[in-house]
Amino acid sequence: MTPGLFDEILARGGVRDAVGDPAWLRALLEVEAALALAAADAGTLEPALAAGIADACSADRFDVGEIAADAAAAGNPVVPLVTELRAVVRTEVSDEAAAAVHRGATSQDVMDTASVLVARRALDVIAADLGTAADAAAVLARVHRDTPAAGRTLLQQAAPVTVGLRAAGWASGLDAAVVALRSWRPAAQLGGAVGTLAAFAGHGLAVRAAFARRLGLDEPVLAWHTERGRVAELAGVLGRAGAAVGSVSTDLVLLAQTEVGEVREDVPGRGGSSTLPHKRNPVGAISARAAAVAVPGLVAAVLNAASGHEYERAAGPWHAEWRPLRELLGTVGSGAAWLADALTHLALDPAAVAASLEVTGGLLLAENVATALRGRVDDPKGLVTVAASTSRDSGRAFADVLAEALHGTDVTRAEIDAALDPAAHVGESAALVDAFLAARSPSEDPA
Amino acid sequence: MTPGLFDEILARGGVRDAVGDPAWLRALLEVEAALALAAADAGTLEPALAAGIADACSADRFDVGEIAADAAAAGNPVVPLVTELRAVVRTEVSDEAAAAVHRGATSQDVMDTASVLVARRALDVIAADLGTAADAAAVLARVHRDTPAAGRTLLQQAAPVTVGLRAAGWASGLDAAVVALRSWRPAAQLGGAVGTLAAFAGHGLAVRAAFARRLGLDEPVLAWHTERGRVAELAGVLGRAGAAVGSVSTDLVLLAQTEVGEVREDVPGRGGSSTLPHKRNPVGAISARAAAVAVPGLVAAVLNAASGHEYERAAGPWHAEWRPLRELLGTVGSGAAWLADALTHLALDPAAVAASLEVTGGLLLAENVATALRGRVDDPKGLVTVAASTSRDSGRAFADVLAEALHGTDVTRAEIDAALDPAAHVGESAALVDAFLAARSPSEDPA
Amino acid sequence: MTPGLFDEILARGGVRDAVGDPAWLRALLEVEAALALAAADAGTLEPALAAGIADACSADRFDVGEIAADAAAAGNPVVPLVTELRAVVRTEVSDEAAAAVHRGATSQDVMDTASVLVARRALDVIAADLGTAADAAAVLARVHRDTPAAGRTLLQQAAPVTVGLRAAGWASGLDAAVVALRSWRPAAQLGGAVGTLAAFAGHGLAVRAAFARRLGLDEPVLAWHTERGRVAELAGVLGRAGAAVGSVSTDLVLLAQTEVGEVREDVPGRGGSSTLPHKRNPVGAISARAAAVAVPGLVAAVLNAASGHEYERAAGPWHAEWRPLRELLGTVGSGAAWLADALTHLALDPAAVAASLEVTGGLLLAENVATALRGRVDDPKGLVTVAASTSRDSGRAFADVLAEALHGTDVTRAEIDAALDPAAHVGESAALVDAFLAARSPSEDPA
Amino acid sequence: MTPGLFDEILARGGVRDAVGDPAWLRALLEVEAALALAAADAGTLEPALAAGIADACSADRFDVGEIAADAAAAGNPVVPLVTELRAVVRTEVSDEAAAAVHRGATSQDVMDTASVLVARRALDVIAADLGTAADAAAVLARVHRDTPAAGRTLLQQAAPVTVGLRAAGWASGLDAAVVALRSWRPAAQLGGAVGTLAAFAGHGLAVRAAFARRLGLDEPVLAWHTERGRVAELAGVLGRAGAAVGSVSTDLVLLAQTEVGEVREDVPGRGGSSTLPHKRNPVGAISARAAAVAVPGLVAAVLNAASGHEYERAAGPWHAEWRPLRELLGTVGSGAAWLADALTHLALDPAAVAASLEVTGGLLLAENVATALRGRVDDPKGLVTVAASTSRDSGRAFADVLAEALHGTDVTRAEIDAALDPAAHVGESAALVDAFLAARSPSEDPA
Repeated sequence: MTPGLFDEILARGGVRDAVGDPAWLRALLEVEAALALAAADAGTLEPALAAGIADACSADRFDVGEIAADAAAAGNPVVPLVTELRAVVRTEVSDEAAAAVHRGATSQDVMDTASVLVARRALDVIAADLGTAADAAAVLARVHRDTPAAGRTLLQQAAPVTVGLRAAGWASGLDAAVVALRSWRPAAQLGGAVGTLAAFAGHGLAVRAAFARRLGLDEPVLAWHTERGRVAELAGVLGRAGAAVGSVSTDLVLLAQTEVGEVREDVPGRGGSSTLPHKRNPVGAISARAAAVAVPGLVAAVLNAASGHEYERAAGPWHAEWRPLRELLGTVGSGAAWLADALTHLALDPAAVAASLEVTGGLLLAENVATALRGRVDDPKGLVTVAASTSRDSGRAFADVLAEALHGTDVTRAEIDAALDPAAHVGESAALVDAFLAARSPSEDPA
Repeated sequence: MTPGLFDEILARGGVRDAVGDPAWLRALLEVEAALALAAADAGTLEPALAAGIADACSADRFDVGEIAADAAAAGNPVVPLVTELRAVVRTEVSDEAAAAVHRGATSQDVMDTASVLVARRALDVIAADLGTAADAAAVLARVHRDTPAAGRTLLQQAAPVTVGLRAAGWASGLDAAVVALRSWRPAAQLGGAVGTLAAFAGHGLAVRAAFARRLGLDEPVLAWHTERGRVAELAGVLGRAGAAVGSVSTDLVLLAQTEVGEVREDVPGRGGSSTLPHKRNPVGAISARAAAVAVPGLVAAVLNAASGHEYERAAGPWHAEWRPLRELLGTVGSGAAWLADALTHLALDPAAVAASLEVTGGLLLAENVATALRGRVDDPKGLVTVAASTSRDSGRAFADVLAEALHGTDVTRAEIDAALDPAAHVGESAALVDAFLAARSPSEDPA
Repeated sequence: MTPGLFDEILARGGVRDAVGDPAWLRALLEVEAALALAAADAGTLEPALAAGIADACSADRFDVGEIAADAAAAGNPVVPLVTELRAVVRTEVSDEAAAAVHRGATSQDVMDTASVLVARRALDVIAADLGTAADAAAVLARVHRDTPAAGRTLLQQAAPVTVGLRAAGWASGLDAAVVALRSWRPAAQLGGAVGTLAAFAGHGLAVRAAFARRLGLDEPVLAWHTERGRVAELAGVLGRAGAAVGSVSTDLVLLAQTEVGEVREDVPGRGGSSTLPHKRNPVGAISARAAAVAVPGLVAAVLNAASGHEYERAAGPWHAEWRPLRELLGTVGSGAAWLADALTHLALDPAAVAASLEVTGGLLLAENVATALRGRVDDPKGLVTVAASTSRDSGRAFADVLAEALHGTDVTRAEIDAALDPAAHVGESAALVDAFLAARSPSEDPA
Repeated sequence: MTPGLFDEILARGGVRDAVGDPAWLRALLEVEAALALAAADAGTLEPALAAGIADACSADRFDVGEIAADAAAAGNPVVPLVTELRAVVRTEVSDEAAAAVHRGATSQDVMDTASVLVARRALDVIAADLGTAADAAAVLARVHRDTPAAGRTLLQQAAPVTVGLRAAGWASGLDAAVVALRSWRPAAQLGGAVGTLAAFAGHGLAVRAAFARRLGLDEPVLAWHTERGRVAELAGVLGRAGAAVGSVSTDLVLLAQTEVGEVREDVPGRGGSSTLPHKRNPVGAISARAAAVAVPGLVAAVLNAASGHEYERAAGPWHAEWRPLRELLGTVGSGAAWLADALTHLALDPAAVAASLEVTGGLLLAENVATALRGRVDDPKGLVTVAASTSRDSGRAFADVLAEALHGTDVTRAEIDAALDPAAHVGESAALVDAFLAARSPSEDPA
C-alpha cells in the first residue's frame, strides 16, 4: 500500500501491511472459509458446498471501502462482509451454500479470530525485527567483548565497562522481548451470539474443534467474548517490547551525541547535512525512540478496553480494542524495524570510545586506586580524594598528582598506572558476555 | 476519502477528513505559502515572487505517497515536500523564487504550524458535534423539565429526579467541554533551526509577525519547538471532551438496556434485528462509548511525547506526537459525532420511564414518607423501615402496608399517597433546569 | 498498620501491608543479609562476620522515618540504611564486619532485589485472592450449571445462557490471571556500580550465585539495572489481572441493578440503607471496579518508567518505578480482595433470574421459534417477525400470537411452548461448564 | 508527618502534606462546618446551633485511623465521620444540633467539595514551586542573555544559541503551566442524594449559595456528581505542568552529563561522591524527571475514572478518582519542588559552555560561513562542504582549512573568523529574551 504521510517514520517495517485493511479483509475471509470447512469436517455441511464457500473467500472479490461504508449500521464490518459473501456464494455455488455461510457464528467470533490471525502475523514480523536487532547487538558484544568504555550512571561517568557488556545488555532485553512475544498463545473464538454454541444445533463443539485446528489456533475451553485476558496479555507483551526498544534506542541517541560520538548510524544519504558535516542524526534510533514513547499510552488504551466487557458481549469496550490494538502493533513494529536498522548499521568509533574514558583525566578510576592502595598507605580513600580534587582543580593529570602524593611510599608509578588502566577494571565483563552469548545461541537460532 | 475498515465506527464524522493526509498536505502548503508572503510583508522577498510561491502551494500538484516515501531519510515529510515545491517554483516562477521557498524556517516550524491548523479545524468539528449533542440534550431538558424518573446511585434506584435534570446534566458537561476546546489558543511556530530566527538575517521578528497574522494564529513570544505546553493543553481539553462523551454515552447505553428501556435510538435500519424485535442496539451510544474508552490512553501517549523534548529540538518525542495526536483528535471526533447522532435521534419511552419508578413498589419514596411523618408519629423512621420490609417480603403495595400501619393515627391515605408521589419529591429539579437553560442560551447560541 | 483514609476501600486486603514501608524495610535488610551470607558462601567473608551482619539486619532496629528523611541526598533509601546498618554492625560485631556490609553492591542492586521480594509476596496475596474469587465463581458454575438466564449482548437481551456458563466465564478469566501472575519470574539483581561486578574483586559470579540462591530468586545472566523487561512484564501481568477484575465486577454491578436484581452481596451491615430497604449497594463489586478503573493508567506509568533507562543506570526512570509500581500492586490487590469478598458473599436471586427471562414476553426466543418452524411453514422468519411485532405492540403473549398465526398448520401449541422454553435453548452450556470445571480442578487445587 | 520511604524523593515539597490524610480530614470538617453555617445563613438552622456544629468540626477531635477503618462498610469516609461528628455535637451542643449535622447533603457532596479544597491548596503549592523555578530560569535568561552556547537538535550540535534564550524557553514553559494551574476553577458540590437538593425542603438553592460563598468556591449551576469535567480539567492542567517539569529537567540532566558539564546543581552534600570527585549527580533534576515520567499514566488513570460516571452517582468511577488524583497532585508537586531546587541551585560553568562550542572545531558555524560567502565565491556551499570534510578528516582547524581554500579570493581571514564567531550568529536571541522578560514581569509578580 502507498504509505501515509507519517508511515515511513512511525509505521515502519512489515507490520504496517500486516495490520492494514487488506490484511484484515483477508483474515476475515480466512475465518469464514475455515468456518465452512469446519462445518464440513463436523458433518453438518456437504464438503462440496464448504469448498465452494472457501473458494469464494478470496479477498480480491471484495471491496474494503464498500464493506467499511456499511459497517456502521451493524456496528462491525462482518455483517456487510457476510452479506456480500453470501451474494457471491449464491451466484457461484448455490442458495444452500449461501445459507450456510457464517452459520452458527456471531460477528464477534469472526472479528476476534481474525484479529488473532492479524496479531499473530504482526508479532512474527516484530519478533523477526527485534531478533535482527538483537543479533546485531550480539555481534557487537562478541566483537567488542574486551573494548573498555566509560560506564555511566545517572548520565555521569562512573566506572569502566566494556562495549561488549553494554551491547550484551541490549541483546538480552531484545531477546527477552522476543521470547515474551512468542509466548503469546492466541485462541480461536467461536461461541455464537451468547457463547453457548446454540446455533450449531448440537454440533458446536465439533465445529469449534475443527475450526481451531484448521486455523492453527488453540481451541479455548470457553468463548472469550468478554474474557479479554488474551488481549490484555497481548498488550502486555507489546508493552514490554516497546520498553526494550525504548531503552536501547535511548542509549544509541545518547551515544551519538556530538559531545560523545561513540556511535553513528552508517546509512548513506540519511541523517546527514551537507553543510553541517559533523551532524549525523541517528534517524533510526530517533524514530525507534519516537515509537517507544507512544507505547505505554497505547497499552493503557487497549487494557482499558479489555477491562470493561459486560455480560455476554460488550457495549463499546469491544469496538474500543480495534484501533488502539492496531496502532499498538504498528507502533511497536515501527520501533522494532527502526531499531533493527539502527543496530545493523551501527558504526562504532573506537577513538571516541577511548576518548570518553579520558574525559575525567583518570578520575573515573579513582575508586580503583583507593582499593589498590588499601594496606599500602594509611588512609587510601583520603589520599585519593585529595589527589582527585587537586587534579580536578589544577588540571594536572591525576596520575601525576597521585605519584607526587605517593612519593616516599613503596607504591610505584607502574602500580599507579595499572590502577588507572580502564581495561584492567572492567570486572567480570568478559565472563558475563561469554555467558550471555553461550546461553543465547541455541535458543535464538532461527531453526 | 474512502473509509478504512473501522472508520465509520471508530473514526466517524468530519474529523477523519480534517486530520487525514490530504488535509495535512494542504496545511503544510498553506504554511509554506504564508511564510513566503510573510517574507514579502517584511520586505525580504519581492511580492511577485512570494505570490508565485503561494500559487505553487496547491495541494493537487503534490503526491502524498511520494512525499511520504521520502520522509524517512530526513525524519519528516517537510524536507521532501520542500524539494518538490522548489522544483515546481523553479519551473513556474524562477530560480530566485525557488531559492526563497522555506527560507529561514526549519522543518519543525512548518510541521508544528501545520499541526496547529489541522488541530484547530478538527476542534471546530468536534465542538460543533458536541454542540449538536448538547443542544439535543437541552431540548430534552426543556421538554421533560417536569417528567419524574428514577434517580440512581451506584446503579441502585435511590430517589426521584426528572428526565430534564438528568438531560441538563448531560448538556452541561458537553457545553463545558466545548468551552474548553474553544479556549485552546494555538500559536504559530517560527524559530529556524534552533529557535533564534538567525537564518532570517535580521528580519526574523518581522517575518514571524506577518506569518502568524496571515495564518490567523497567535504569535508566540518564543519558539516552542521543545516547550510543548500547548500540545499538552490540547491533549487535556480533548481528554475532558472524551470524558464528557463517555459519561453521557454510558448513561444512554444503560437507559437503553432491555430491563430499563427508557430510551432508544430511533434510526431506521440501524441497531435492529428482524427476528429479535425487542433488541435495539443503541449503536450511536455504543460507538461513542467505544471512542471514550480509548481516550485516556491516547492522552497519556501525547502527554508522554510532550514531556521529554530535549534542548532546541527533540530526538524522538517530537515525532512521537504526530500519530497519537491524530488518533486522539479522530477518536474524540468520532465520539462526538456518534453522540450527536445518538442524542438527536433519542426516543424517550414515557411509559418505561414511569414504569421504572414503580419497580420498587414505592420503596423509592420511603425516605420521603419518613420525613412526612416527622412529628406525626412517634418513631417515623422505625415505622417506615418495618413497613418497607413487610412490603418487600410480602409483595403487598407499600402504600397499603403503610396505611395499615398508620391506622389509628391522623395520617390520611391521601397524605400517604402524596408522600409516595415521585413528582412531588424531585426537589429543585425544575428550578435547576430553568437556571441551566437560562444561563446556557446566550453563550451557546451559534452567532 | 493503621489504614489511611481511603485504604479500606482502595487499598484493601493483604497487599497494602505487603507493599508498605515496613515490608520494604524488611526486604532491604533481607537483601543486605543475603549479600553478606553470600560473601561467606563464596569465601570472601568470614562466616562469623557474615552471621553477625545478618543478625543485625533486623527491621526493628531501624526507623523508616529517619532513613526516609536521609534518602533524598543520595537519591535512594539504601545509602542511609547502609550507614545505619554499618553503625549497628560496628557496635555489635566489629569494624571489619562493618566494612563488609554492602560490599561490592550498588544501591540499585539492593533496591531492585528488595522490590522483587516485595512484588513476589504481593503477587502471592493477589493470586490467593483471585483464586478465592475464582473458586467462588466455579462453585456458582457448578451449582447453576443448568439454570437458564437471559444472555445479553450490547446490554440488550439476546438469547438464553445459563448462570453457570456466565460464572464459568468469570472463573476462567480469573484463573488465567492467576496463571499469568504466577508465571512472572523475578531475578535477583547484583552487578555493582556499572554491572561489571568489579568491586567483588574476582568473586562476583560466585557471590551472585549464592545471593540468588539464598533469596530463592533466579540468577540473571546479566545485571538488569537498565534492562527492565521483568518490570514491564510485571506491569503487564498486573494489567491483565486488573482487566479480569474489571470485567467480572462490572457484571456484578450490572446484575445487582435495581431493575435486574439477579444478584446481591449478602454481607450484613454493608451497603444497605434502613429507610431504602430495596437499596443494596454491591460495595464489594463497586470497590473492585474502582480499582480496575485505575489500573491501565498505572500500568502506563510503570511501563513509561521502564522504557527509558539510560546506559548503566538511569537518571530518573529508575526512581520513577517505585511509587507507581507500589500503587499498581496495591490497586490490583485491592480489586482482588474486594472481588473475592463480593463473589464469596454473592447471593443469587433465582426468581429474579427467571423474571429477567420473561421481560421480553418470549421475544428472546423468537430466533429459536423461526429455526423450529423451518420446513414446517413457508416463510418461518417472516411469520415470526410479524408475530413478534404484534406481540410487542399489542402486549399479548408471544406464544398466543404465534399459536394464532400457526392455526391451520400442523404445528402444535406444545411445539410452540417447547420452542419458547429457555432451558431448551442454551446450546452447549452444560457441556462447556463441565469441560471448564474438569480442566480446572487439578491445576487450581491449592496443593 | 513522618515521610514515607520514598517520599523525600518522589513526594517532595509541600504538596505531600497538602494532600495527606490530616489535610483531607480538615477539609472534610471544613465542609461540614460550612454546610451548617450555610443552613443558618439560609434561615433553616438556628445560628447558635450552626456555630456549635462548626466549633465541633475541629480535626484534633477525630482519629483518621478509626474513620478509615469504618469507611469500607459505607463505601466512603464521610459516613463514619458524620457519625462521630454527630456524637460530638450531641454531647457538646444538643440533640437538635446533632440532627442538623450533614442535613440535606450526601456523602459525595462532602467528599467532592473537600477534594476541591485539597486540590486548590495543592495547586497553590505547585504553582509557587513552579514559579520559583521559573524565576530562577528567568534570572539565568537575564544574566546570560548574550552568552553563546551550542544549540542542539536531535541531540546533535546544530547552531549557536544563547544560554539566555534556552533559559527563557524553560521559564516560558513553567510560566504557562502556572497560568494553566491558576485557571482551574473549582466549584462547590451540593446536590443531595440525586442532585435535586430535595432534602433541603425548599431551601436548597439558598443553602448552596451560602455554602459556596463561605468556602470561597464557585457555585455550580447543577450538581456535578457525575459530570466530572472539572476533574478531567484538573488532570489536564497537572499533565501540562508535568510535561513542563519533564522537559526542563531532562535538559538539566543532559547538560550535567560528564561529557557536557555545562551545569551542575550546587548543593553541598548532595549528589557527590568522595572518591569520584568528577561525579556530581544532579539529584534535583533527576528526581524532577522521575516525577514527570509517572505523570502521563496518572493523568490517564484520573481521566479514565472521570469518563464513566453513571446516572446520578457512579458505581466505582467516583471512588477510582481519589487515590490517583492524590498521587497525581503529589507527583507533580514533587517534580515542581525538585525543579525549583535544581534551578535555584544551578551553577553554570562558563568554560564548559564555551568548550562545547569548540567541540566541532568550528563546523557548527559551517552554514554561516556558506551564507557569508554568498556572492563572494562561485559555489560557496560546495567550498564549505569540502573544507568541512577536510577539517573533520584531518583534524586541522576548520578556520585554517577555509583560509587555505579561500586563498586567492578577496575573503580575508578576519572575515572568516567573524563568520565563525558563535556570538555573532545567535540571531534574535537577545531580542527574544528581552521580549520574554518584558512580557513576563507584570503578569508573574506575586501581588
